[in-house]
Amino acid sequence: MNNLIDKPTCNCGIIGVFGHPDASLISYYGLHALQHRGQEAAGILTSDQNSNFNIHKGMGLVSEVFSDPKVLTDDLVGNSAIGHNRYSTTGASDSRKNIQPFFVNYRLGMLAIAHNGNLTNAKSLRTKLVDEGAIFQTTSDTEVILHLIARSRKTDQIEQVKDALSQIQGAFSLVILTDSKLIAARDKFGIRPLSIGKLGGAYIVSSETCALDINSATFIRDIAPGEILVLSNEDLNNQKISSYSLFDEPNSVFPKKHCVFEYIYFSRPDSQVFGSNVDKMRRKLGKILALRHPVNDKDDEKVIVISVPDSSNTTAIGYNSGLHKLNINSKLEIGLIRSHYIGRTFIAPTQHNREIGVKIKFNIVKGVLENKTVVVVDDSIVRGTTSKQLIKLLKEAKPKEIHLRISSPMITHPCFYGMNFPSKEELIANKFNSDIVEVKKYLEVDSLEYLSIEDMLSAMTDHDKNDFCTACFSGSYPIPINE
Amino acid sequence: MNNLIDKPTCNCGIIGVFGHPDASLISYYGLHALQHRGQEAAGILTSDQNSNFNIHKGMGLVSEVFSDPKVLTDDLVGNSAIGHNRYSTTGASDSRKNIQPFFVNYRLGMLAIAHNGNLTNAKSLRTKLVDEGAIFQTTSDTEVILHLIARSRKTDQIEQVKDALSQIQGAFSLVILTDSKLIAARDKFGIRPLSIGKLGGAYIVSSETCALDINSATFIRDIAPGEILVLSNEDLNNQKISSYSLFDEPNSVFPKKHCVFEYIYFSRPDSQVFGSNVDKMRRKLGKILALRHPVNDKDDEKVIVISVPDSSNTTAIGYNSGLHKLNINSKLEIGLIRSHYIGRTFIAPTQHNREIGVKIKFNIVKGVLENKTVVVVDDSIVRGTTSKQLIKLLKEAKPKEIHLRISSPMITHPCFYGMNFPSKEELIANKFNSDIVEVKKYLEVDSLEYLSIEDMLSAMTDHDKNDFCTACFSGSYPIPINE
Amino acid sequence: MNNLIDKPTCNCGIIGVFGHPDASLISYYGLHALQHRGQEAAGILTSDQNSNFNIHKGMGLVSEVFSDPKVLTDDLVGNSAIGHNRYSTTGASDSRKNIQPFFVNYRLGMLAIAHNGNLTNAKSLRTKLVDEGAIFQTTSDTEVILHLIARSRKTDQIEQVKDALSQIQGAFSLVILTDSKLIAARDKFGIRPLSIGKLGGAYIVSSETCALDINSATFIRDIAPGEILVLSNEDLNNQKISSYSLFDEPNSVFPKKHCVFEYIYFSRPDSQVFGSNVDKMRRKLGKILALRHPVNDKDDEKVIVISVPDSSNTTAIGYNSGLHKLNINSKLEIGLIRSHYIGRTFIAPTQHNREIGVKIKFNIVKGVLENKTVVVVDDSIVRGTTSKQLIKLLKEAKPKEIHLRISSPMITHPCFYGMNFPSKEELIANKFNSDIVEVKKYLEVDSLEYLSIEDMLSAMTDHDKNDFCTACFSGSYPIPINE
Amino acid sequence: MNNLIDKPTCNCGIIGVFGHPDASLISYYGLHALQHRGQEAAGILTSDQNSNFNIHKGMGLVSEVFSDPKVLTDDLVGNSAIGHNRYSTTGASDSRKNIQPFFVNYRLGMLAIAHNGNLTNAKSLRTKLVDEGAIFQTTSDTEVILHLIARSRKTDQIEQVKDALSQIQGAFSLVILTDSKLIAARDKFGIRPLSIGKLGGAYIVSSETCALDINSATFIRDIAPGEILVLSNEDLNNQKISSYSLFDEPNSVFPKKHCVFEYIYFSRPDSQVFGSNVDKMRRKLGKILALRHPVNDKDDEKVIVISVPDSSNTTAIGYNSGLHKLNINSKLEIGLIRSHYIGRTFIAPTQHNREIGVKIKFNIVKGVLENKTVVVVDDSIVRGTTSKQLIKLLKEAKPKEIHLRISSPMITHPCFYGMNFPSKEELIANKFNSDIVEVKKYLEVDSLEYLSIEDMLSAMTDHDKNDFCTACFSGSYPIPINE
Repeated sequence: MNNLIDKPTCNCGIIGVFGHPDASLISYYGLHALQHRGQEAAGILTSDQNSNFNIHKGMGLVSEVFSDPKVLTDDLVGNSAIGHNRYSTTGASDSRKNIQPFFVNYRLGMLAIAHNGNLTNAKSLRTKLVDEGAIFQTTSDTEVILHLIARSRKTDQIEQVKDALSQIQGAFSLVILTDSKLIAARDKFGIRPLSIGKLGGAYIVSSETCALDINSATFIRDIAPGEILVLSNEDLNNQKISSYSLFDEPNSVFPKKHCVFEYIYFSRPDSQVFGSNVDKMRRKLGKILALRHPVNDKDDEKVIVISVPDSSNTTAIGYNSGLHKLNINSKLEIGLIRSHYIGRTFIAPTQHNREIGVKIKFNIVKGVLENKTVVVVDDSIVRGTTSKQLIKLLKEAKPKEIHLRISSPMITHPCFYGMNFPSKEELIANKFNSDIVEVKKYLEVDSLEYLSIEDMLSAMTDHDKNDFCTACFSGSYPIPINE
Repeated sequence: MNNLIDKPTCNCGIIGVFGHPDASLISYYGLHALQHRGQEAAGILTSDQNSNFNIHKGMGLVSEVFSDPKVLTDDLVGNSAIGHNRYSTTGASDSRKNIQPFFVNYRLGMLAIAHNGNLTNAKSLRTKLVDEGAIFQTTSDTEVILHLIARSRKTDQIEQVKDALSQIQGAFSLVILTDSKLIAARDKFGIRPLSIGKLGGAYIVSSETCALDINSATFIRDIAPGEILVLSNEDLNNQKISSYSLFDEPNSVFPKKHCVFEYIYFSRPDSQVFGSNVDKMRRKLGKILALRHPVNDKDDEKVIVISVPDSSNTTAIGYNSGLHKLNINSKLEIGLIRSHYIGRTFIAPTQHNREIGVKIKFNIVKGVLENKTVVVVDDSIVRGTTSKQLIKLLKEAKPKEIHLRISSPMITHPCFYGMNFPSKEELIANKFNSDIVEVKKYLEVDSLEYLSIEDMLSAMTDHDKNDFCTACFSGSYPIPINE
Repeated sequence: MNNLIDKPTCNCGIIGVFGHPDASLISYYGLHALQHRGQEAAGILTSDQNSNFNIHKGMGLVSEVFSDPKVLTDDLVGNSAIGHNRYSTTGASDSRKNIQPFFVNYRLGMLAIAHNGNLTNAKSLRTKLVDEGAIFQTTSDTEVILHLIARSRKTDQIEQVKDALSQIQGAFSLVILTDSKLIAARDKFGIRPLSIGKLGGAYIVSSETCALDINSATFIRDIAPGEILVLSNEDLNNQKISSYSLFDEPNSVFPKKHCVFEYIYFSRPDSQVFGSNVDKMRRKLGKILALRHPVNDKDDEKVIVISVPDSSNTTAIGYNSGLHKLNINSKLEIGLIRSHYIGRTFIAPTQHNREIGVKIKFNIVKGVLENKTVVVVDDSIVRGTTSKQLIKLLKEAKPKEIHLRISSPMITHPCFYGMNFPSKEELIANKFNSDIVEVKKYLEVDSLEYLSIEDMLSAMTDHDKNDFCTACFSGSYPIPINE
Repeated sequence: MNNLIDKPTCNCGIIGVFGHPDASLISYYGLHALQHRGQEAAGILTSDQNSNFNIHKGMGLVSEVFSDPKVLTDDLVGNSAIGHNRYSTTGASDSRKNIQPFFVNYRLGMLAIAHNGNLTNAKSLRTKLVDEGAIFQTTSDTEVILHLIARSRKTDQIEQVKDALSQIQGAFSLVILTDSKLIAARDKFGIRPLSIGKLGGAYIVSSETCALDINSATFIRDIAPGEILVLSNEDLNNQKISSYSLFDEPNSVFPKKHCVFEYIYFSRPDSQVFGSNVDKMRRKLGKILALRHPVNDKDDEKVIVISVPDSSNTTAIGYNSGLHKLNINSKLEIGLIRSHYIGRTFIAPTQHNREIGVKIKFNIVKGVLENKTVVVVDDSIVRGTTSKQLIKLLKEAKPKEIHLRISSPMITHPCFYGMNFPSKEELIANKFNSDIVEVKKYLEVDSLEYLSIEDMLSAMTDHDKNDFCTACFSGSYPIPINE
């Protein structure tokens, strides 16, 4: 199996719906909109608030898992729902068991959860729980949260949740469904996004605002870092959202640490994330990249700017406008066309060529590139293998020169907060000791430039520079990694 | 869906293998042999005793669930295994989740279980556990046992199991697999069967001895009522089986309450169950039935004895030999042939005929029945609907008379120890207030006779009459039913 | 794949329905009843007599191919239908293409066919047709018949069919459906059976009468050897069946050559075939076998007679009654129980044992056999491999002696008229040069006896001895085999 | 089912490979590259040139039909192959039967065919053939060609093919595989494309050159209109291609009638079709569209040009450059993003919204469009329903104005040469009597303009204007339509 996209993977998209008779459909559309956050598995759980939970989940895309519309209309009944898209987990044999939402029965009734992020103290919490007699069904971090809630000595359900969440560390944006409430919460660093919107009298919580848009819901605001937001029937009738805080002092100022990769690659360009429009941020990254690392044609001819579709499309627009600002004669072109018919992975029937995978995914428009100085704008490089094949493919069009520009810094460190990279050794930066000259040689391009961390953060004009986690570029982790 | 067999259903067959490199294959063959105990789902879990558990389970027959042989040879590696065949459970949406074996991770490592039987205090135990913060993933009784083990304050694993099993009430024959041991246990009444055998240096535990025979293993003995039998690597090396007791005083004499239906219908005729050969017991039941309720031809011609294949085949042999003892001129014949090509259930494309289901399952041999006095021997009647259709079908052969003889008493009460009947109202005996004359009319036979409880038990010559549970015939339950 | 039944295979069962609104359902039930004639594939085609043919066919059992009842009720509409069950054909890649019924469009409209038998001049006819410009889609003989009809110079459809059938040689029982007629025909030797019955105002044609019985239809008569029977709407209204002859002189006396294996093994015991009841014939074969080859116990104890279920069940009854006639103290017993849960074939996950296949299919009832002189009655032996394993299995019950009795002669020659054996070399008789002593040694039985051809034919008291084809036993082929 | 793309559909892509040990793999990659020409079904047939044809075909995308790589490497062996992608055909029940390639057996051996196009005299040819005794298995035009070849009185195979092709009228590009040859042919009007390339010593024939590129083969030339090109083993050894003509006088000048829609929408932009690069032609169409129908912002602000991805991407580039030529201040932007995770069709679980289908397929980038004058460039409108929803969706971004520009004329007539439209009544142009004002109102845009036929043809600067078929815009059909 040849994974055709050499990008980090996010481990999920979540959605919650409260107070709508079409809760399952809204979740379904929302998960479609969040499909880019996880393509390995999907699930939706609904509740009719009479202790009846209905669930359907499976391996595959949302459209595959819910290929039978009756599941949505006849089985998944109820006014509230939570849903989840998952990206790869480790452990093949457990993979079905690990598909979220999870649900269990506990003291105060049914309890279901869908979680985006990664806990950094899951292992020690698990050990402690197991010592107390807890049994675990999955290898997932998320099950720890359920146990912590069930074992809380508090009698009030919200207090139980608060009790549980105050014990976990790391990144989490999550939705919890109980017999009568929808609870949404986000870690105090605000690492992963989470927003809430309104649809008539109902509420929708989702990883990104695109899941609100597809349902024609109105964006209200982001769930704040450290916030526990609760929707109940009473609140619904009063058009009220109850909010609790994970902090002892609710108004304490706490440094945010948003994942900068949400802007670089993860989030959908039409989403509003961490308070800013993703598309706009990508354009800015592209523009700064051009200002720092412009490309000129040696014969003073027009420079052709192309993207690696579709993730770096708007970054390339920004790059082109940056060149124009420098009065470089450049033109944005479509030099690569991406096939719509190939799924996430392509199984090449024979070993001998990785090449064919790239060719099946992308085709080049030769006329546009021939004899031109071409700038290829991409948002990130992980392993570099796909980039290498792509450059090779582009050379078939006989361009004059190929320059590669990356709108993020070199990735050198693993993420412990919910993003999956290949092993440290497989990262192209580490393979060549972060020596950009060697990477350039390997990729066989005429020049290669990345954005520096500083430059990257300078694009985040709506934010304080310190509001972002840049651990994967710098190795400086905002939350201690002990396990 | 038209269930073609109108019989009570047993809720499972279990197997455990310890110390054999082909543990998964032995389990697979064993589950094939135990297929009659449960046809809805099957599963096998293996352990390599290095904390790695492998599992494969699914809905369907053993041959369907394990249709890919690679699963057995490549995935289910390890020297120890437990397996399970399940019959219908309630709750469609949970049905996949409820397939056994179950396995979890707890304080002392991995823990897997497969269970035959039904607990009578599961509900109250569950409530108590949940109050203490336990979370439940399934609606199955069996999960309660796992929690009780995990929460035991004992430090030794065997003590934990003993602690847990001493709290549960009802019927249970079970196998438990841990990282280093195979544990087999049986409730103190010995309601469901469980036996142990030897294959080379390895051990096999199974519901019936037929699962030993198919593996060419040697039968050692039954697990005793109230016994906890433990196989560990050390014991294996010393060719030793460790045995513990659920009773405080190990040698206390305790009344057994074997399920008499294991002899009447459930167990395979070639199995040795509760110390006796099943086939032999069925012949005795048939013989006594003949002695109590013989049939004569009014014209002194030969009486034809037929069975409803295949479950009452040997009972019919016994009945015929009983008639011979009475010097009645009778002959055992094959009057009904059962199709081998129809699965468990037949989906009739149209509503209008239950009739066709019986016709597809059975064909009559007209020549044998025409103008004869025919005795149809069957082991039990539950709803009576299939019997009615079968009699109707037999009449197409134009017999002189049809007499129906049942080798068990009227079923009038539900079973709480692991046997499934339809609702009390659906039982034919209850529909007609146990009035045999009315049942006879409904079935349109020339005569109908059941065995009385007394007569039935008189066939159990190897046993004390009090060793059997007859609650489904009498309503007198040996274990209190409070929930 | 381990084919569990070592028997010759028939290559199909056919059915035709004319003039009934439930034509597809009647075909479906009929194919269920004919399932024993072919288990590899099934298909039904219906016509609404407005040139619309609907078809559904697939690999597998009838219940598998028609697992969706909607296919029968919603898709296969129309008042007339033909259906087909197929046994194995050669040529894996073509296997789907070769599933019958076939249908084509030709000069006079739609034309569909289902065929049981095998043509002996298919190859030369095919060559001739191809020379004239015909194109072939399948490798099946049956397609030749369609071409011959389409190319006939006759203008009348019945004349075209007669023209075509007069050119083919070999065994054929077939049903043809056109836009307005159902045509049934049988070769002049009457090798394979074909019968017609009546259901209200409608007609059913089928390979065996059991397909009439399941539909509660009334048997009218067999289609005569050499007869072409035509049902049309006009005839239907007049309650008339039109009959044509393949012979130039309709009343010419022609030797019949019925396949004797239909009585020995193929046909269902409750069917009426070639004018006699199959069950009755099997009993006679068993009785003669006993008279010729009785078995006595050396200690004058009771001899136990068992069958190999289910095909030789009634033969064993006949054998037992034969022994009684000889005043031998014998008893018919059930010594082998056949599993209902195993499909046609069993995929053993490991190479090393054919043995397990037999064990999974059959279980022995030890108590019945232990220390007894046992006669195993079987209808035929082909390869002998299953028999060998079965004897081995029976020996686990520690019988005093095992005697094997076969109710047919040794199979030594291939069949060219529609029955499939393994290759000549694989036949056990040929492996041991028809030396019964060697076969006995190989099977490890205490004695082995077959019926001679003479004795076998002496059982056919309702028929002239010359009315049967015995080529597979004698090598004397009634229809020349040139190709 | 909601077809998300409102475009005409082409009925297939074909490929042929001759003389390469990886013929099946090359076909597979080629069909991937041609996937845009047909997504309903796919098939590959290989020949080892010893009269053994291997075939695999099925419903679905190439990646779905060939999801098991073993099929390609183990089953589809041989040095020559033909393959086919199909778009929708009529007749659900026949749909499997109609999947190409077709293959039959005829006088000179095996014969296989894959066909792109549509015959206009298929019906009368079929009638004639049927009258002569031919039988038809499918409802496809293509089967007619096989019969014509088989029935040709010529003895030489090439002459037979020539004989057959000279009788058919309409559009056809086809590949034929025989036991020893690969034959490629194209109708005399050259309606559908067909090209040949070289890969080492082997040859590849394919609908578009992109199927050559993906295999790194070198483009040689187009098959000429009216040419029959033959590859045989002898020719292969001599590096020779044999060419025959369908014209009596090979050098006769004949008007070409290329399908102009291949340039507008069908062909892949990176293909070379009819001698020109498709991408280049689309840019020209866009440019002319801008020159004829420019858009200005009423406040003299920058005009935003967006495409409907991905088919009109390069047309939008051309449009934007056209505006620049007119000195209009415009910018090409990405205003719509197309989801990669949705397959060809989307099954909406509820009736009530077509809207959601468009939202799932496309997302809008609000920031780019808000308060702007937006030009949406699309290549064609068929029904208009998707366009209407798309405009509605775009309005959510609150643009100042929306102007729709179509790079082709109004579609008013059906195509009989291999392109599928909905019924004439469903065409938006016909719904509004070709009244552009009404269409504009229906779509709710601020302005709407199409290219005129004249203007469209003026973009084809490499060709004579008369070289194109424009029947779907004008109703003037180059080949008479009688049937």
